[in-house]
Amino acid sequence: MALSKKPVTGMKDILPKEMAIRDYVSGVIKETYRQFGFTPIETPGVENIENLSSKQGGENEKLIFKILKRGEKLNLETAREEKDLVDGGLRYDLTVPLVRFYSNHSNELPSPFKALQMGNVWRAERPQRGRYRQFMQCDIDIFGEPSNLAEIELILATTLTLGKLGFKNFQVRINDRRILKAMAAYSGFCEDAYDNVFIILDKMDKIGPEGVLEELIHNGFGSENAEKYMTLFREMEEAADGLTYLAEKLGDFLEEEVRENLREIMESVEATKGSFFELVFDPTLVRGMSYYTGPIFEVAMPEFGGSCGGGGRYDKMVGRFTGKDVPACGFSIGFERIILLLMENGFNVPFQSEKTAYLVEKGLPAEELGKVIARAQEERAKGGQVLVVRMNKNKKFQKEQLAKEGYTQFQEFFRDPIKTDPRS
Amino acid sequence: MALSKKPVTGMKDILPKEMAIRDYVSGVIKETYRQFGFTPIETPGVENIENLSSKQGGENEKLIFKILKRGEKLNLETAREEKDLVDGGLRYDLTVPLVRFYSNHSNELPSPFKALQMGNVWRAERPQRGRYRQFMQCDIDIFGEPSNLAEIELILATTLTLGKLGFKNFQVRINDRRILKAMAAYSGFCEDAYDNVFIILDKMDKIGPEGVLEELIHNGFGSENAEKYMTLFREMEEAADGLTYLAEKLGDFLEEEVRENLREIMESVEATKGSFFELVFDPTLVRGMSYYTGPIFEVAMPEFGGSCGGGGRYDKMVGRFTGKDVPACGFSIGFERIILLLMENGFNVPFQSEKTAYLVEKGLPAEELGKVIARAQEERAKGGQVLVVRMNKNKKFQKEQLAKEGYTQFQEFFRDPIKTDPRS
Repeated sequence: MALSKKPVTGMKDILPKEMAIRDYVSGVIKETYRQFGFTPIETPGVENIENLSSKQGGENEKLIFKILKRGEKLNLETAREEKDLVDGGLRYDLTVPLVRFYSNHSNELPSPFKALQMGNVWRAERPQRGRYRQFMQCDIDIFGEPSNLAEIELILATTLTLGKLGFKNFQVRINDRRILKAMAAYSGFCEDAYDNVFIILDKMDKIGPEGVLEELIHNGFGSENAEKYMTLFREMEEAADGLTYLAEKLGDFLEEEVRENLREIMESVEATKGSFFELVFDPTLVRGMSYYTGPIFEVAMPEFGGSCGGGGRYDKMVGRFTGKDVPACGFSIGFERIILLLMENGFNVPFQSEKTAYLVEKGLPAEELGKVIARAQEERAKGGQVLVVRMNKNKKFQKEQLAKEGYTQFQEFFRDPIKTDPRS
Repeated sequence: MALSKKPVTGMKDILPKEMAIRDYVSGVIKETYRQFGFTPIETPGVENIENLSSKQGGENEKLIFKILKRGEKLNLETAREEKDLVDGGLRYDLTVPLVRFYSNHSNELPSPFKALQMGNVWRAERPQRGRYRQFMQCDIDIFGEPSNLAEIELILATTLTLGKLGFKNFQVRINDRRILKAMAAYSGFCEDAYDNVFIILDKMDKIGPEGVLEELIHNGFGSENAEKYMTLFREMEEAADGLTYLAEKLGDFLEEEVRENLREIMESVEATKGSFFELVFDPTLVRGMSYYTGPIFEVAMPEFGGSCGGGGRYDKMVGRFTGKDVPACGFSIGFERIILLLMENGFNVPFQSEKTAYLVEKGLPAEELGKVIARAQEERAKGGQVLVVRMNKNKKFQKEQLAKEGYTQFQEFFRDPIKTDPRS
C-alpha cells in the first residue's frame, strides 16, 4: 500500500524558507527575554486528561486531541464513554502546563521565577486558511511578583522583541479585570452575569457601541443598566483622562489601588518605551479567559487587523494545583501570526555568512575529492558556509538554482586538473 | 478537585539549568550543519496512523501513542478493535515523517536536499532511568545524492558538531549492509534468515564471538555455517587491512564497487578529520533498521558505553511513498544522550553576558521606579542582562540566591534616595 504523502488534516510541514524565519524569530525572542532575566523551560506535549479538562482552558477544552490508553488499561469491552478510553491529551495551550510545572518545582526555582516557554500546542479546530491544528505558542510569565513590576517588565520586554523584529506603530491596550467588574457593578448588572456582559462587550470592535447596547438588551439585560453601562464608555472616551473620569464616576465601586496600579504601569512604560508603539487604556478590553484577576493587555497590529499577543495577571491559578495562591502574570506572543506577517511582507533573515558552492565533477579521483573537502573544511572553520555538491550536466541551470538558495560564490573542480580554476 | 502537579508518566519537565544546555547544544548543531549547507525543516508531531504502522518503524511501531478519532468519526458502539478508534499517532521517530515530507514537497526543494530536523518524538516505553517517553531527536539527511559525498559530508559535519561540544576520543564505526549480506551469503546462510543472523551478530559487543557462535547454533543455524561465519570475523581482525582481506576472501560475493565505495569514504574522512576521533571499519556493525541499503555508521562514546548517534543510506524508502526511489542518506544524533553526558560532566554554557540584578525597595515612588527601569533598558540595549527585582527583607540571602543563578553585579535602589548607591 502506498503511504500518504500529506500531513494529517489541519497540520502542516514547514519548508526551509519559513523555517529560517521561525528560527530567526525564536532567536530574537530568546535573546531579548534573556536580557530581562527570563529563563527558558519546557514541558511535555502530553498532559493528564484531568488537568486539561479542569475548566482552566475555556472553550479550548472542546478541542483536545485525546490519547488512547495502552496495554491492560485499555478495555474496549467495558468502555462506555470516551473518558474510559483515554488517559492523556495533547496540550491546547502552555498556561495549564506552565502552572503545573511551577507547582511541581517551585522549591527548585528562584523567586520571582521568570519563565519563557516556546512549544507546540494542538487544537482540533475546523481547518481554515492560516489556522492550523498544531502551532507554536510562546509564553512569558513571572511567578512570585505581586507588584506591577511584573506587568511593566512584561510589556517592555514584549514590545522590545516586536520592535527588534521590525514591527512598529502598533498598540498595546491595557485594562484591568477589576475595572471591568466595577463598571458592570456600577451599571447594576448582577455579578453572576458579568461573564456574559463581557462576552458581549468584547464585540465592541466589530459591532460598535450601538451593537453592544442592542445585544445586551436582546440578551435580557435591563435597558436602564445597559444604557448606564454604555454611557460610561461614551463619556470616558470624551474625557481628557479616562482613568480620572472613571475614578470620579465609579467612586467606591473601584478601589483607588486598582486605578493607581494601572496608572503606574502606564507611566513607567511610557517613560522608557520609545515611540515605536502606543500604550492606551482601553476599558473595552476583555481577554477571553476568566482566570485573569488583575491587569490585562493585548497587542493590536494594524497590519493584521487583530491581536498579536496578550496576557494579564492570574493570581489564583497556582492555588488550583497546590492549595496556595502565588502571584502570576504572563504574556503570550502570537508566534504564528508574527511569522505570517513577516512572510507576507517578504521578510529576509539577516545575512549570516557568504554562501559558497563547490561543484565537483563526477569521477574526480578519491584523493582529489579529499583535497576539495579539506578546502571546504578550512572555509567552514573560518565561519563560512560551503556546500559541496556534484556538478550536473547542465551546470548553468544548477548554478541558477543554487543562486536562488542564496549561493553567491562558486568553485568548480574537474577530473582534468587543468580545467579546474578555483577562482571560477 | 486538586490537579496533578506531576507530568504524565514517563515524561519530564525541563528545568532552566538543563534547558540552557539544550538550547546551547541546539544552537551548535544548527550552526554547524548550516555551514555544510543543511537547512532546518519541521513536520507535525502527529502523523496518520497508517504511515506510522507501515513497518518502516520496526519495534517502535508497538510503542505508538495513538490519538482518538473526534466528532462523528468516533463511534464507540460499532468499534471492535483499537484501529476503529484512532486516526493518528504521535511520531516515534523523525525518519518516517521526513521521508513523507520529502515525498510531498520534492518539487519545491533543491536537489540534493540537505535537511536538518530537530523535534520531539514519543514512545510508550516502560519508564526507566534516563529514558523518557518524550524525547528530542535530531536527524540530518541528504536526499538526491547517489555518491558517497553524502556519507562523507554527514560524517564530517556530525563529528565536527560533537567536537565543538567538547567530545573527543570517540569512535565512528562504519560498515555496509551489502558487506553484512555478502559475509552471510559466503557463510552459506539462507537469505531469508539474514535478519535473524544480524540480530545475533549485533550482540557481539556484549556476548563476544563465542556467545554469537553459540546463539547462532542454538537458533538452529548449521554449525558449519556458523563457524565459517565466525572465522571470517576472526581472520579479518588479524588481517592488516580488513577490507582487503574481505575482498580476497569473499570474492564474487562482494562487489568491488561496494568495497571501493567504503574505502573512499574512509580515506576522504581520514584526510580531513583531525585527531579528535577515530574512524574504523567494523564488520560487526548491524544498525537495527532493515531499511538501510548501503553504508551504515555509528558513533561510539567511551564515556557512555553506548552509541551516541548513527545512520546510513536508505535508497528505497522514498519509493514507498512515491513509487520512485530517491537516494537518501542520514545521520541521527543522540541528542538526549549528549545532554545527559554534558550534564553529568558539569558542563557550563559559555559566557553570554554579565548578569546584573537591580534590587528595588518596596514603595519606591512610581517616578523613581521609571528611572530605574530606564537605566535597565539602557544596559540591555548595550547587550547586558538586567533583572529588575523587588528587594527582600533579607537582602543578603536574596543576593546569595541570585549569585547562584549567575548574577555577579548588584545595584540597590531605596525609597530614600540618599541610601541609593548605584555602585553598591
